[in-house]
Amino acid sequence: MRGVVMYAPGDVRVEDREDPKIIEPTDAIIRITATCICGSDLWPYRGVEPVDHNPMGHEYIGIVEETGDDVKNVKVGDFVVGSFVISDNTCEICQAGFQSKCVHAEFVSQTIGTQAERARIPHADGTLVVTPGQPDEDLVPALLAASDVLGTGWFAADAAQVGPGKTVAVVGDGAVGLMAVLAARELGAERIIAMSRHPERQKLARHYGATDIVEERGEDGVAKIKELTGGLGAHSVVEAVGTQESFMQAVGATRGGGHLGYVGVNYDVKIPGIELFFAGIHTLGGPAPVRRYLPDLIQLIWDRKIDPGKIFDLTLPLEQAAAGYRAMDERRATKVLLTL
Amino acid sequence: MRGVVMYAPGDVRVEDREDPKIIEPTDAIIRITATCICGSDLWPYRGVEPVDHNPMGHEYIGIVEETGDDVKNVKVGDFVVGSFVISDNTCEICQAGFQSKCVHAEFVSQTIGTQAERARIPHADGTLVVTPGQPDEDLVPALLAASDVLGTGWFAADAAQVGPGKTVAVVGDGAVGLMAVLAARELGAERIIAMSRHPERQKLARHYGATDIVEERGEDGVAKIKELTGGLGAHSVVEAVGTQESFMQAVGATRGGGHLGYVGVNYDVKIPGIELFFAGIHTLGGPAPVRRYLPDLIQLIWDRKIDPGKIFDLTLPLEQAAAGYRAMDERRATKVLLTL
Repeated sequence: MRGVVMYAPGDVRVEDREDPKIIEPTDAIIRITATCICGSDLWPYRGVEPVDHNPMGHEYIGIVEETGDDVKNVKVGDFVVGSFVISDNTCEICQAGFQSKCVHAEFVSQTIGTQAERARIPHADGTLVVTPGQPDEDLVPALLAASDVLGTGWFAADAAQVGPGKTVAVVGDGAVGLMAVLAARELGAERIIAMSRHPERQKLARHYGATDIVEERGEDGVAKIKELTGGLGAHSVVEAVGTQESFMQAVGATRGGGHLGYVGVNYDVKIPGIELFFAGIHTLGGPAPVRRYLPDLIQLIWDRKIDPGKIFDLTLPLEQAAAGYRAMDERRATKVLLTL
Repeated sequence: MRGVVMYAPGDVRVEDREDPKIIEPTDAIIRITATCICGSDLWPYRGVEPVDHNPMGHEYIGIVEETGDDVKNVKVGDFVVGSFVISDNTCEICQAGFQSKCVHAEFVSQTIGTQAERARIPHADGTLVVTPGQPDEDLVPALLAASDVLGTGWFAADAAQVGPGKTVAVVGDGAVGLMAVLAARELGAERIIAMSRHPERQKLARHYGATDIVEERGEDGVAKIKELTGGLGAHSVVEAVGTQESFMQAVGATRGGGHLGYVGVNYDVKIPGIELFFAGIHTLGGPAPVRRYLPDLIQLIWDRKIDPGKIFDLTLPLEQAAAGYRAMDERRATKVLLTL
């Protein structure tokens, strides 16, 4: 089969990879019908994270082609959306809603690699969610978004305890930040402040529910959030960039006793303990337990109540994945969908 | 009046200080009947935090001697317990339960200084809590403990979401850690693991409710907690030391999706963002909003349902404060009560 392999930072190739096979009785093989490039794929692309001939991609939707003997919840022909982290969905951690920390957790990225024609999904029963039927073509981008970027943005908003009457600040106008804006609206936030200085993304943020835009960053950004919130800071802050500056901007924008949800930090971030301490805030972060949210998100998409698919602003065939990486790296595209 | 002044690290003196006076109409002057030395007083004592001729002390109980014109909730002659952070208890942040981040928050330590015969307490209505009557002598240590060390330990346990059915690990066997053990028992924890290698403190931890003792530290400590919790880690972890090693030990001991409550970090702590991220845990820390818990804690003490006063293992007259600092610095005492 054809699949994306990142040889080294900046060096993305589409080449023949071995077809996946059932290894464990809990595996399923799916034929991928759409996949995409994630902001986090840019970390190895930019050399911030190690990479060496790794298969790439961890967002995927597709059709089940084969199942292991122990697979019960999905069957051949089912259309499925999967999380970017493998989970059994039965262990104590999964049952508590933290499937991304499942005792059988395994990252799909850089090992399985779903920027490819097929993929072996371990713990298929716990990882994949079957859609109500074969989706209409126009729902494909939205369902694909649920696999990570929507689920991650939703988790970030939930981790920040977004809810009615709350003011939310979203640091980051990338795909995850924009999805957090969408989630904040759905979760009933009163005011949603998107921190963005990119006109197109500001427009999309407004489309998804942002009530205010703040262009300032760092300490100026914090000061602006304070100004907009009677000096207190936001009840809920989502951090969706992952740099030292953006993380501390998010900490500073959160009111005492408020909640910060963060969904990615790079390897260089060192949080000064004393600053976090004196901020006096709740934090929750980590790889999002997308599996927790998938059934509800799929239903919202199926019922056309949310339109996360708009987040894709460039669509390319899998064979042109390298061009997709370049477009995202150069910020010419927010998120690239790869067709098969 | 007589009061403690720390001239420089290691240099603690008791000398004549000016008597406090009402400045704002919301102030009260209290005659302090007992005060104590806090683990955090050792930070400047050890040169980890700056100090330069600062009045010391932030834990206090006493009798109201004078009130400003706007003070309504406390009156002359009332016996009161106060928080170590000034709060109005009416602002939005206070109403949300985070009085230590009050819009009028001010630290009692190193400015007001309650290791003294008297103190001016700003925002007396919001900071002080009147006891049900004049306390019996045997309740004095317990009421004094409520002012910080009990309130802080309680907050730490609450921040770690301790509750029935939960396994709690407490990192640190100092006074706050031991009070967190007491709080964990009161909050109904199923299993309370105290991390301590000090025989006397282990004994006190058992007295307060610890069901298990772990002597290992750092990675070995984490491994031991994992071993005791089926490989998952504790649901709730309290960090009550504040060093780099202890903080990361606490992060590592918390299960995915679990809760870490931390109540002090020193200036050198730098939390690797990526480790916190992949831990996938909730955190809540900061100066404890003791004021939130004071009414309940005072009642528990008054009804003799808890005995936090046992935490004081050395009692000295105020004039011998320097000897008290030395005893705590050298770990010959867990916590020193100063009588007046």
